Amino acid sequence: MGRWEPNARGRLEQAAMDLFIERGFEQVTVAEIAGRAGLTERTFFRYFADKREVLFWGQGALRELLVDTVAGAPDSMAPIDAVAAALEAAGAVLQERREYARRRQAVIAANTGLRERELIKLASLASALAGALRRRGVTGPAASLTAEAGIAVFKIAFERWMSEAGEADLPRLIRASLDDLRTVTAAV
Amino acid sequence: MGRWEPNARGRLEQAAMDLFIERGFEQVTVAEIAGRAGLTERTFFRYFADKREVLFWGQGALRELLVDTVAGAPDSMAPIDAVAAALEAAGAVLQERREYARRRQAVIAANTGLRERELIKLASLASALAGALRRRGVTGPAASLTAEAGIAVFKIAFERWMSEAGEADLPRLIRASLDDLRTVTAAV
Repeated sequence: MGRWEPNARGRLEQAAMDLFIERGFEQVTVAEIAGRAGLTERTFFRYFADKREVLFWGQGALRELLVDTVAGAPDSMAPIDAVAAALEAAGAVLQERREYARRRQAVIAANTGLRERELIKLASLASALAGALRRRGVTGPAASLTAEAGIAVFKIAFERWMSEAGEADLPRLIRASLDDLRTVTAAV
Repeated sequence: MGRWEPNARGRLEQAAMDLFIERGFEQVTVAEIAGRAGLTERTFFRYFADKREVLFWGQGALRELLVDTVAGAPDSMAPIDAVAAALEAAGAVLQERREYARRRQAVIAANTGLRERELIKLASLASALAGALRRRGVTGPAASLTAEAGIAVFKIAFERWMSEAGEADLPRLIRASLDDLRTVTAAV
């Protein structure tokens, strides 16, 4: 019968992240997360299917942003630049939550199952990007290759963003990593 | 006390693959695999930790081949070409077993858990390649980026190899996919 709680999702997320970092993902229960947030388990399950979803719930919105940005890119734009624009748009969203992203990454890095889930997420984003490119008329292996290259660029940029001190800018790092990819693949 | 069986590994692998394709990976038991091969369960477990390992036991040797090829490449060779040489060497080994690779791929494609395991395998090969490049003196994000780009190239080449009819040549497809990557990432 719980009534609607203002910003319950945010409080649950904050409580979960604090607990995951203090004690490790495996050790934390949903009851503890709800308790720390001052809410009931019932309220928790209104927002998340399980404790893992606290770390992955934004995935659908991220995929949608990538696909919509590729679809909306000017026809004249090269496929790799449409993908880069999509990744930069996603990077700009993540940039707003750098401290959260850093804490989330620490939780994921400490747990094999979560690291695997993150890899699967990236593979599914690569498929979504390849699909969006095909709908723009990119044919054959070029669609998958461009999407996979984009995800590789994103992965490296994200790692740099997490490891660099100070005010590193994720969209800028994505653009720089694409330039690096061009450099490392350049024929001699 | 089972005595040593000539080519027991090969017979078990063949029996397992037949059963996985006939009935689906989930439905098959180790007892059935051993029975089909005319061997005991005890013999099965001398070669494989579980039925999944029948599909993944070559991973260590593959990683070693990649790492050794990168390490042994001439100093003058560009990092991406050392990675391409390593992937082509692996491709040449796989080329010898195309029919097996095709059956294995059908089993993996039909099972979510196996598809995830395959992604994790590719990520671990990317890490191994990046490590081998760092030991050649490649610094900073270039090592990871080159390794990830190589794995993306391999993945697409492998998919083409599996889907193309006739006598497609995997090492040649790897080289062609690297050229494609250069084309799709080329700055306009």
